[in-house]
Amino acid sequence: MPVISKKGRMMPASPIRKLVPYADAAKKRGIKVFHLNIGQPDIATPKIALDAVRNFDQKVVEYSHSAGILSYRKKLVDYYARFDIHITADDIIIGAGGSEAILFAMNSCMDPGDEIIIPEPFYANYNGFAVNAGIKVIPIPSKIETGFALPPIADFEKAITPRTKAIIICNPNNPTGYLYSREELETLKAIVLKHDLFLFADEVYREFCYDGKKHFSVMHLEGLDENVVLIDSVSKRYSACGIRIGAMISKNKELMATALKFAQARLSPPTLGQVAAEAAIDTPDEYFVNVLKEYVARRNVVVDFINQMPGAFCPNPSGAFYVVARLPIDDSDRFCKWLLEDFSYQNQTVMLAPATGFYATQGRGLDEVRISYVLKVEDLKSSMNCLQEALKVYPGRK
Amino acid sequence: MPVISKKGRMMPASPIRKLVPYADAAKKRGIKVFHLNIGQPDIATPKIALDAVRNFDQKVVEYSHSAGILSYRKKLVDYYARFDIHITADDIIIGAGGSEAILFAMNSCMDPGDEIIIPEPFYANYNGFAVNAGIKVIPIPSKIETGFALPPIADFEKAITPRTKAIIICNPNNPTGYLYSREELETLKAIVLKHDLFLFADEVYREFCYDGKKHFSVMHLEGLDENVVLIDSVSKRYSACGIRIGAMISKNKELMATALKFAQARLSPPTLGQVAAEAAIDTPDEYFVNVLKEYVARRNVVVDFINQMPGAFCPNPSGAFYVVARLPIDDSDRFCKWLLEDFSYQNQTVMLAPATGFYATQGRGLDEVRISYVLKVEDLKSSMNCLQEALKVYPGRK
Repeated sequence: MPVISKKGRMMPASPIRKLVPYADAAKKRGIKVFHLNIGQPDIATPKIALDAVRNFDQKVVEYSHSAGILSYRKKLVDYYARFDIHITADDIIIGAGGSEAILFAMNSCMDPGDEIIIPEPFYANYNGFAVNAGIKVIPIPSKIETGFALPPIADFEKAITPRTKAIIICNPNNPTGYLYSREELETLKAIVLKHDLFLFADEVYREFCYDGKKHFSVMHLEGLDENVVLIDSVSKRYSACGIRIGAMISKNKELMATALKFAQARLSPPTLGQVAAEAAIDTPDEYFVNVLKEYVARRNVVVDFINQMPGAFCPNPSGAFYVVARLPIDDSDRFCKWLLEDFSYQNQTVMLAPATGFYATQGRGLDEVRISYVLKVEDLKSSMNCLQEALKVYPGRK
Repeated sequence: MPVISKKGRMMPASPIRKLVPYADAAKKRGIKVFHLNIGQPDIATPKIALDAVRNFDQKVVEYSHSAGILSYRKKLVDYYARFDIHITADDIIIGAGGSEAILFAMNSCMDPGDEIIIPEPFYANYNGFAVNAGIKVIPIPSKIETGFALPPIADFEKAITPRTKAIIICNPNNPTGYLYSREELETLKAIVLKHDLFLFADEVYREFCYDGKKHFSVMHLEGLDENVVLIDSVSKRYSACGIRIGAMISKNKELMATALKFAQARLSPPTLGQVAAEAAIDTPDEYFVNVLKEYVARRNVVVDFINQMPGAFCPNPSGAFYVVARLPIDDSDRFCKWLLEDFSYQNQTVMLAPATGFYATQGRGLDEVRISYVLKVEDLKSSMNCLQEALKVYPGRK
C-alpha cells in the first residue's frame, strides 16, 4: 500500500470543523445549536449580484482569462479607488477565493523551508496554506490585554532569521476583530524595508470597520510597492462565500508575472462567481450601512454580555465580525466539546471555536474562544445566555 | 527588493499562451486566426445546467461542504455507476476544476523531491502542478508511430527509483487523443502493485471515445483500490470550462482523509459551479450523441487532410478532441510563431500549439504540433487549407 505524503500527514485538520460531529449529535438529541463557530454570515447576498448570475446569457461557460475577466478587474480598479487604493487591472489576479490568492502569494514569494511571521492568534487556515507551500510559520504573540494590538517591533526583530521571507497580517483581524492603526502599519513598513521582506495583508474585512474608525490599507504605505501583497476576497464583503472569488494584488511586476504562471497552470478562476462579483461592485451603499449597523449591534451584545460574566473578558474590537474572549475555563477545546456533548440550557447550546486553533504556540489560547457574531441579535442573546449558564456549571471552571 | 521564490522562477509559462501576443498582432493586421491551439470547445453548455444557475433561488451563496455539496456527490455516484464505476459520496472530493483535484492528489501522495512518471507528450500543466508541489516529472516517451500507445513496461521499470511515488496517465489523452486499452491499464496495474505506487488517471475526456471503442477506466482495475486516484472534470464533458468543477476520487480512505484537509484549508469549491454541474448530470443522452458525431466529423477532416499533405503524418486517435501531428518542419515553436507573424492565406491563418510544450525531454516534439479540433467542420477545412499552403512556403521546411 503506497504511503501518504509527510506533507499530507502534517496538514492540520480544521479547528473549526473538528467539533462538527458533536454538534450533529447534539442536534440529533433535539438540541438547538447556535453556530458562533464559523464565518458564514446570515446576511443576504446583494440582489444585484444574484441577478447577474440569474441573467447569465452566454451559451458556453468559457474559461476566463487566467488573471480574471478583464471587465471585472477594470471595475475592481474603480472599487479600490473608492478606498484611495490606486492600482491597474494588471496589478490584480483573481483567485478561487482569498485562499487561492494566498497560495499564489506564498508560492511566488517563498520556497520550502522559508519562514513567514504571523502575529498570533491568526486565521487558522494560514497553517494549512503554509504546510501546502512547505513554509514555516513563526508566530509572534499578540495579547488580549491590548485588544490584540500589533506586537512590539522588538518581537519581530527577534523572530527574523535568514529564512524569513514575509510577514502576514489580517486587517481587520480574524479571529480577534482588531483593526490595525496607521502607526502600526508604518511600524511594519520599517521592518519590512529593513529586512527586505514581503508584507502580505489580508484585508477581506475592509468594509467591516466600526465606531467611526477608518481602515488604513497596506496599499496606502508609500515606497513599499515592491514588498506589499494585498489579499482580498468578496466572500464576507457581499456575504457570498460560495462564489469563491478573491484576489492577489501587487504593484511588484516580477511578482505578478510569477503569480500569473501559477494562475495559468490552473487555467481560470470561476466564471460564474466573477459575474456575480463584478455586478456586486455596484451594490448600493445602503447595503453596507445596514450591514454595519447590524454588526455593531451584534458585537455590542456579545461584548457587553461577556464582560458582565464573572471571570470573563472580551475586548471591544473595531472590525470584522469576530471576538476572541477570555473565559474562566481550563481548556477551550474541552469546554467547546463539553458545550455540545454534555450541556444544554432550555434545550439550546452554543458552538464556539476553541482559540487554541488560532495559535501556533502550544498551550496558548486554552482559556480563550473565538465567537463569530454572525447571527441575529435575538439569537446572540440566547447564545450568550447559554454561555453564561454553561460557565456556572462547567466542571473545568477556573 | 525581496526576491521571488525559486519555485516561482521554475514555474513554466503556458506553452499554449505564449503565442497569444502574436495572434493578437495578426488580428490587428486584419487576419482571421483559427484557434486550434486551445481546449475551449465551441459546443453549447447543456441548457439544463445553465437553467439551474439561472433558477438559483437561495438568498445567500454559502460555502458548500469542503468536499462538495452532498446532493451533488450523491448524484455523481449515479453518474459513475453508468460507467460501471462503483463508488460512494465519501470517495469524492470536488475541486475547483480538475486542476485543483490534481494538486490535492499530488500534495496528499507526494513530498518535495518525489518523482512522478508520465508518458510524454503529456498535458503541459502537469509540469506546473509538479513545480507547485515541488515534485519531479520523469517522462517516458510514447511514439507517434504507434499512435502514442503506452510505452513498453521496460521503459517504466527503467524510470523507477526509490523516489518514485506515482504514475499519471490521461485517458483518453490530451494532447494525443490516444485511448488506452484494457491491456495497457492491466500492464500499469502490475507495475503499480510491484512498486507500491499511486496511479493517477485523468479521465476528463471519458465521454469522448469514437469508432465504437469503449472507455476502460482505471477504476475498473480490480485489487487496486488503495493505489488508484481518479481525476475528473466537467469542463469538457459539458463544455463548461468556466464553472471550475472537477473531482478527486479514490477508495483509499487514508488518502481521502488527507486530501480533505487540503480541501478544508480552502473552505469550499465554487457553489454556483456545483449547482450547474449537479444539474448537468441529467443532460439527455442525445446531447452526447450529437457532440460525438460532430467531433468524429471534425477529427476526420483534420486527420484525412494532414495525411494527404506531403511529408506530414497524423495518427487517427479514438478519443478526446486533439491530435498530435508530425509536420515537415524544423522547429514547431518557430513554425507556429511564423504562422501568426509572417504567414496568411486568403487573409487567414491558423494558431497551433507547438508539441515541444507537451514534452519534458528537451528536443522532442520539434516536428510535431497539437491540433485541437474544437471548431466547426467548415472552419477546420479552412484551417487545414491554410496549414497546407503554409507548409508549401515555410522557410524552415524539411
